[in-house]
Amino acid sequence: MVTLKEIAKECNVSPTTVSNILNGKPKVGEETKARVLEVIDRRGYRPNYIAQGLRNQKTKTIGIIAEDIAQFTTPEIVEGIMSFCEERGYRTIVKNLRLYARWNDSWFSNETSYHSILDPVMKELDSIMLDGIIYIAGHARMIHCFSEGVRIPAVMSYAFDTNPKIPSVVVDDKKSAYEIVQYVISKGHRKIGVIGGKADNIHTQQRLLGYQKALFENQILYNPSWIRYARWDKESAYQEAKELLKTDVTAVFCMSDRMAGGVYQHLAEKGLRAGEDIAVVGFDNQDIAEYFVPGLTTMALPLKEIGHTSADLLLRQMEDEKTGEAPGQIKKLIPCTFIERASVHRI
Amino acid sequence: MVTLKEIAKECNVSPTTVSNILNGKPKVGEETKARVLEVIDRRGYRPNYIAQGLRNQKTKTIGIIAEDIAQFTTPEIVEGIMSFCEERGYRTIVKNLRLYARWNDSWFSNETSYHSILDPVMKELDSIMLDGIIYIAGHARMIHCFSEGVRIPAVMSYAFDTNPKIPSVVVDDKKSAYEIVQYVISKGHRKIGVIGGKADNIHTQQRLLGYQKALFENQILYNPSWIRYARWDKESAYQEAKELLKTDVTAVFCMSDRMAGGVYQHLAEKGLRAGEDIAVVGFDNQDIAEYFVPGLTTMALPLKEIGHTSADLLLRQMEDEKTGEAPGQIKKLIPCTFIERASVHRI
Repeated sequence: MVTLKEIAKECNVSPTTVSNILNGKPKVGEETKARVLEVIDRRGYRPNYIAQGLRNQKTKTIGIIAEDIAQFTTPEIVEGIMSFCEERGYRTIVKNLRLYARWNDSWFSNETSYHSILDPVMKELDSIMLDGIIYIAGHARMIHCFSEGVRIPAVMSYAFDTNPKIPSVVVDDKKSAYEIVQYVISKGHRKIGVIGGKADNIHTQQRLLGYQKALFENQILYNPSWIRYARWDKESAYQEAKELLKTDVTAVFCMSDRMAGGVYQHLAEKGLRAGEDIAVVGFDNQDIAEYFVPGLTTMALPLKEIGHTSADLLLRQMEDEKTGEAPGQIKKLIPCTFIERASVHRI
Repeated sequence: MVTLKEIAKECNVSPTTVSNILNGKPKVGEETKARVLEVIDRRGYRPNYIAQGLRNQKTKTIGIIAEDIAQFTTPEIVEGIMSFCEERGYRTIVKNLRLYARWNDSWFSNETSYHSILDPVMKELDSIMLDGIIYIAGHARMIHCFSEGVRIPAVMSYAFDTNPKIPSVVVDDKKSAYEIVQYVISKGHRKIGVIGGKADNIHTQQRLLGYQKALFENQILYNPSWIRYARWDKESAYQEAKELLKTDVTAVFCMSDRMAGGVYQHLAEKGLRAGEDIAVVGFDNQDIAEYFVPGLTTMALPLKEIGHTSADLLLRQMEDEKTGEAPGQIKKLIPCTFIERASVHRI
């Protein structure tokens, strides 16, 4: 591999001159510049970005730390970050902590396990002089991720950081749940059961607040015994559906599409049909929602936009633009998009 | 950040000694070693892996280039690679070319577009002195990716490289299709239609060979007019199903689960049911297969194993182990796993 020194020698200029040309500094005459660029091109010289970073403290590279890229929400957030960064001339690299692959969901409250994985990755990224870091959580919660001493701009995506200086970008769960429950009510339903995710989960809590708000605004009594909690998956929701459908609810708001699948399964076994006998709505708009028969009405998670917004906040920090907000007060809530299919009938 | 030099000074040894200790070289006395390690620990010194790489030509880091991590097959292959590498003490970084996000599927035959994205990434990875690279394709095909001059070990995952020196790891499409068609035949079906992916696609071609082999071994005539091609998605398969089900086929082999969704949709419109009136099988075992009613019998793609095997082949190259095979003759075919649900009835 040809080095910068060799290029300089061949052009009869100093290495500093070659470096100035590569970094677009204005001090070099046009003729010299053209000559050096020609040699760089002909010899196939390529600057070593990372070594450059070690000197300049600027690599034009953003680090992305994913808790687990196999979580269904993560690849699209990554895509959102990368498309934004690419347009703005930033490279990206991804590190994957594999937390769900490692421990399923037994680790959330274990700081020691968590940091045994996170800390070496942070050190590694620190050592390659990135310009900024975006951390993508697998689900919304408070995370003790970026220490007070974090030296480069950072953004928490899809969750909150305990460090108040770190901006966060999350789903507007409350508003989105409110919207879909309003829709169900608009179809004449007033007895609306809920199958939520785990009770201590932020998504569950916020979506329940949205449900309660929609009920209140329509002067519908809130019946706590119609709120059931499952584990986000089909099987656990199927069990809850059995109990819930012993009551006289006419509609079920499921906090994930997978859980709506459990309700569909129970209905099929009883010879009933979603969108005819019982209205069912989901949340997430995963691929499966389109394949349900009838198609599942749901809220599409704004994953790409969460990625875009996270990258935007990071680049603003990096470029020292004034956001008009003091750092640490930035919590962006991104609303979902309503997707109407055929699982809610009018009564 | 404390430097290696400062550690050396504090310990009254040379920087080379500190470096030897960090790299596990045997020349240093036990007492010195213990003293230096104590200082390293106390001062929080961390070696700069990349700068180390620039000196040692070894970073213990594997680069993963994904054509698009939003392709449904990719995250699990990445997980397979990473879990293998982590066990063996290698770090990984991921670069995402975003080819499908950029151009959908219009780019496969356009070398210029392709290399306008690939080449800068290759140069960037080259400049950080990785120990090896694994390239993950979005679908199987011949890819002109690694040039003859590639200087570090490389593996092509989920496709083939035109460079015969690059080992490849792909799905055993033929064997897997053979297996599921054998199963359909074992249930008494002899009139088995096919909805394939695009006709010029390697997956389609190999799966068709498996279908033909199963027919031949059971002395069933091959009827070319029962082979229809769609675009891997639900909608195009729905259109093909309309035509195919005008014939007297009793079963349909769909080359993707999504396409099986199109067949289910057509059956529902005709008041028919998969697994009762017409047998349907899919391929891929995406999440959706479990949510079909009835559940879809299909072949699960061996994505994690493809990742493992790719990483294994790479590390073998890197560690100069003898594989008993000359490089370039290595093409690993990984079979799928049969997943029986309820979409095939006995006739």
